[in-house]
Amino acid sequence: MKCSTIARLLITCPDQPGIVSAITTFLYHHGANITMLDQHSSDPEDGTFFMRLEFQTPHLDVDRNALEQAFSVAVADKFEMQWYISYAHDRKKMAVMVSRHDHALQEILWRNQREELPADITMVISNHPDLEEEVRHFDIPYHHIPYHHIPVTRDNKPQAEAKILSLLEGKADLIVLARYMQILSDDFITHYPNKIINIHHSFLPAFAGANPYLKACQRGVKLIGATADYVTADLDEGPIIEQEVHRVSHRFDAEEMKEEGMNVERQALARAVKWHLEDRIIVKDNRTIVFT
Amino acid sequence: MKCSTIARLLITCPDQPGIVSAITTFLYHHGANITMLDQHSSDPEDGTFFMRLEFQTPHLDVDRNALEQAFSVAVADKFEMQWYISYAHDRKKMAVMVSRHDHALQEILWRNQREELPADITMVISNHPDLEEEVRHFDIPYHHIPYHHIPVTRDNKPQAEAKILSLLEGKADLIVLARYMQILSDDFITHYPNKIINIHHSFLPAFAGANPYLKACQRGVKLIGATADYVTADLDEGPIIEQEVHRVSHRFDAEEMKEEGMNVERQALARAVKWHLEDRIIVKDNRTIVFT
Amino acid sequence: MKCSTIARLLITCPDQPGIVSAITTFLYHHGANITMLDQHSSDPEDGTFFMRLEFQTPHLDVDRNALEQAFSVAVADKFEMQWYISYAHDRKKMAVMVSRHDHALQEILWRNQREELPADITMVISNHPDLEEEVRHFDIPYHHIPYHHIPVTRDNKPQAEAKILSLLEGKADLIVLARYMQILSDDFITHYPNKIINIHHSFLPAFAGANPYLKACQRGVKLIGATADYVTADLDEGPIIEQEVHRVSHRFDAEEMKEEGMNVERQALARAVKWHLEDRIIVKDNRTIVFT
Amino acid sequence: MKCSTIARLLITCPDQPGIVSAITTFLYHHGANITMLDQHSSDPEDGTFFMRLEFQTPHLDVDRNALEQAFSVAVADKFEMQWYISYAHDRKKMAVMVSRHDHALQEILWRNQREELPADITMVISNHPDLEEEVRHFDIPYHHIPYHHIPVTRDNKPQAEAKILSLLEGKADLIVLARYMQILSDDFITHYPNKIINIHHSFLPAFAGANPYLKACQRGVKLIGATADYVTADLDEGPIIEQEVHRVSHRFDAEEMKEEGMNVERQALARAVKWHLEDRIIVKDNRTIVFT
Repeated sequence: MKCSTIARLLITCPDQPGIVSAITTFLYHHGANITMLDQHSSDPEDGTFFMRLEFQTPHLDVDRNALEQAFSVAVADKFEMQWYISYAHDRKKMAVMVSRHDHALQEILWRNQREELPADITMVISNHPDLEEEVRHFDIPYHHIPYHHIPVTRDNKPQAEAKILSLLEGKADLIVLARYMQILSDDFITHYPNKIINIHHSFLPAFAGANPYLKACQRGVKLIGATADYVTADLDEGPIIEQEVHRVSHRFDAEEMKEEGMNVERQALARAVKWHLEDRIIVKDNRTIVFT
Repeated sequence: MKCSTIARLLITCPDQPGIVSAITTFLYHHGANITMLDQHSSDPEDGTFFMRLEFQTPHLDVDRNALEQAFSVAVADKFEMQWYISYAHDRKKMAVMVSRHDHALQEILWRNQREELPADITMVISNHPDLEEEVRHFDIPYHHIPYHHIPVTRDNKPQAEAKILSLLEGKADLIVLARYMQILSDDFITHYPNKIINIHHSFLPAFAGANPYLKACQRGVKLIGATADYVTADLDEGPIIEQEVHRVSHRFDAEEMKEEGMNVERQALARAVKWHLEDRIIVKDNRTIVFT
Repeated sequence: MKCSTIARLLITCPDQPGIVSAITTFLYHHGANITMLDQHSSDPEDGTFFMRLEFQTPHLDVDRNALEQAFSVAVADKFEMQWYISYAHDRKKMAVMVSRHDHALQEILWRNQREELPADITMVISNHPDLEEEVRHFDIPYHHIPYHHIPVTRDNKPQAEAKILSLLEGKADLIVLARYMQILSDDFITHYPNKIINIHHSFLPAFAGANPYLKACQRGVKLIGATADYVTADLDEGPIIEQEVHRVSHRFDAEEMKEEGMNVERQALARAVKWHLEDRIIVKDNRTIVFT
Repeated sequence: MKCSTIARLLITCPDQPGIVSAITTFLYHHGANITMLDQHSSDPEDGTFFMRLEFQTPHLDVDRNALEQAFSVAVADKFEMQWYISYAHDRKKMAVMVSRHDHALQEILWRNQREELPADITMVISNHPDLEEEVRHFDIPYHHIPYHHIPVTRDNKPQAEAKILSLLEGKADLIVLARYMQILSDDFITHYPNKIINIHHSFLPAFAGANPYLKACQRGVKLIGATADYVTADLDEGPIIEQEVHRVSHRFDAEEMKEEGMNVERQALARAVKWHLEDRIIVKDNRTIVFT
């Protein structure tokens, strides 16, 4: 199987001469064949160096652990790198959180089923029971939190989040908020830095907050948008991964903008999730580098 | 000449049954041949009725003045219409105001020269002398206000605006702010309600105010935009006519976003100006109806 | 219910003065309140007149049959109109035909479930058994034709089509080919003129015929597209309803173009189907007028 | 000046392990600081390796000639590379050829004037005298070939092309056909392989040949496009550099599609020219790799 042999190396470090040479020479000497390399420097002087590199593993002279340890000693430490290697063969675990709208959820489930989004969906968590049947149709566990007939309130939110965290434990390399309409606590977010992707139903930073389509309609915009970002403690202020827009006109009322907007959301979210699963994204200073 | 025979009727009035019948029957009886009709109702119940209608004039049984007077008596008064008829043959007078960036100005001058923007450009007004030669190349008068070597300040702004208003007197059915970087006073704007089109270099309402490209770059957006709107007393809050976006990436620094953004601005502004010149826009409650 | 009160009138006729007046006056006198009117003339001289009009029915002075009969006598005959009135309340019957790819089918089923595509899906017909379970999940009958384990060949195609026609009899105001990979015979098509919508996986007329994504990849295009058209006897030459494109690059191999293309197909097809269901399309001389 | 220090290395060679390591180690040892590196492999097995790399030159230990000679011996020969180094400081010479339409020409001249297209425009060559004044306004020589009042015909075309070639001699690293409506001979093209960029006024391969907008209108397309490609002996079959589309509708007649299409052409052509000037394009097997 082709993807069993692909590894991806992502690196962030202070820029200086010799980094690429050190990395690629190391890999060459260990039998790795580089098939893709994309580099970005924020500034030639005193900037930050970002790199994404794909290599083939069949002819490695050591096993993965040994390779990573050697890389750490021989290259990474010297250049003060933040780095990781992932293997396409190790499918990421993905959890989806949703409230009542099913459009973003469906898009993720379909594309996952078609292998466009290569991950194991471990569960869907919702603060509503509505979408259980749709999810079970895909043979994916559905957790209604806190539990049926008890809504989430300010009082039971800590317990609800604790329950969710325990469900996610070890089962989420990525959490997708597919229109999950509850605000996650800072504490919750701290557990998954740059691992929670949200789809906001507007072209951020325009129309942050609630009811963006209504606001967009009232403002008379001619394009409506959606923004996928990593969730941070500042609501709607996380690093933007992807944005998309569709054209609207005076003929669209707020309801029709919402309907059209849902189609925008599906596309922006699906692309952001795909890029995360393929290890194409590095976050730095609340902005993303997306190696596409 | 084809366009000598085209008239356009634009109407806003409270919605009620019988409006279209009354209008079209009136026109038919006077020999007008309707070639295009586009109608919009904000709401079937107690809404507002908007209409744009094109008709051919060669077989009219009366002259224009008589037709308009008859329409007023027979139809418009009865339905409490705000309305006007314009004739494609009566080219609108257009003034352009600009500061130092020439991209939006050139796009307007050049499309006007090609008859894509059918108007008589009566003058270009600038608070800088820089673009005089470029404008004179098109045989268009260039006015530097207040005058060479004296910049506009808080103190002389009233005098500068008074001078501009006197220049524009009778010579501007439309004023295009093609990146004019001075804020016009409320008093000035009052003279030209829904007749001043501005191009804002962002996707409003995101990044209103100064330095939008720098803000966009810092926020890490993936699409940059431009917005053409009618200028109102509330800066960057006027009715939006057109918006456009282009894709950017982490590779764009603020300067490159600005460069790409200029191309977005040219397109959005040119379209907005064209629609205004073709009487395609009705403003209502700070939103536009654009009959395209 | 709101849509129970909406009627749509679509008209094609030789252009001449007085048509709009005659139509709208007729409707006004019968108590119809026009809420939308869009007209197009192919040419002011000797052209064709096209119109789509929406009106509210609650205050009609006669029933539908009487209204239509009166319209025929009083207006339509005089102007030699081809015309029909449809009522939003009378949901159209829609059949879907599909082979093995499920992306277009799912998009249609799901948008129908959400009422974005207001129709009664009467059945899904396929030349393969693969998608039966997915369809049954939506409680929609699935017909595998000719029947399980017997593929369609040149020999049994007439029988297969006859069987399909008998299934569709009275149950299809619209047939959607959601990637149905069999060519329908001219005879079959004759039964449903301008009522069969196909999604072609390329930007027609580029890459007509088989394997469009492979051809697009080999040609090195930078945008891939999809085209929804009405099926005619000339394969891939029917009147185009909608087209959409997405950007690709040298990084996309034929397989990835196909994957991205599927997302383009879903959007273009869904829009075309929606417009058909809302009676927004008129076909003339192998081109469509789409009143959006 | 910043760009005086930027060099670009472009490489095509058979893929094998060790290439990136060899290149980057060579550059590091000579004091070059790599600021951007983008690599593409057509296939991990027996594919072709493509790379674009930017590096800073201030700390090079040898001069340019010595660096290039050393690279040739130490790296390029070993890996059978086709390669070149260009320096941003060495502005490319660009000639523009045009007939009567000025839109593509104007776009190139403007963007060049604003330094969006960093090149020295050495001349404009035309088979018509019409645009001479517009070009001279930019202080650029204008050559009307063959000469005033003698049109190009089959008989004098060889002489005309000979004259053009002599004018271009040493003055054209790039030739832009900004709607030049004469077909260049194979012999002419042979002098400038992958150095002549044409803008075709359709979404190739759709509507190749003459009158594409008329054909597009008759076919009833919903998007019109433009394609920038490198000119080859096969007309409209060269490697595609960039494509762009704009939406049209049934309201557009052929003339309006042409007008809108001109705006599409301007954008697609300007981007292709920019990428060429920035050494972002490699051609292989009639397709382009565009490192953006």
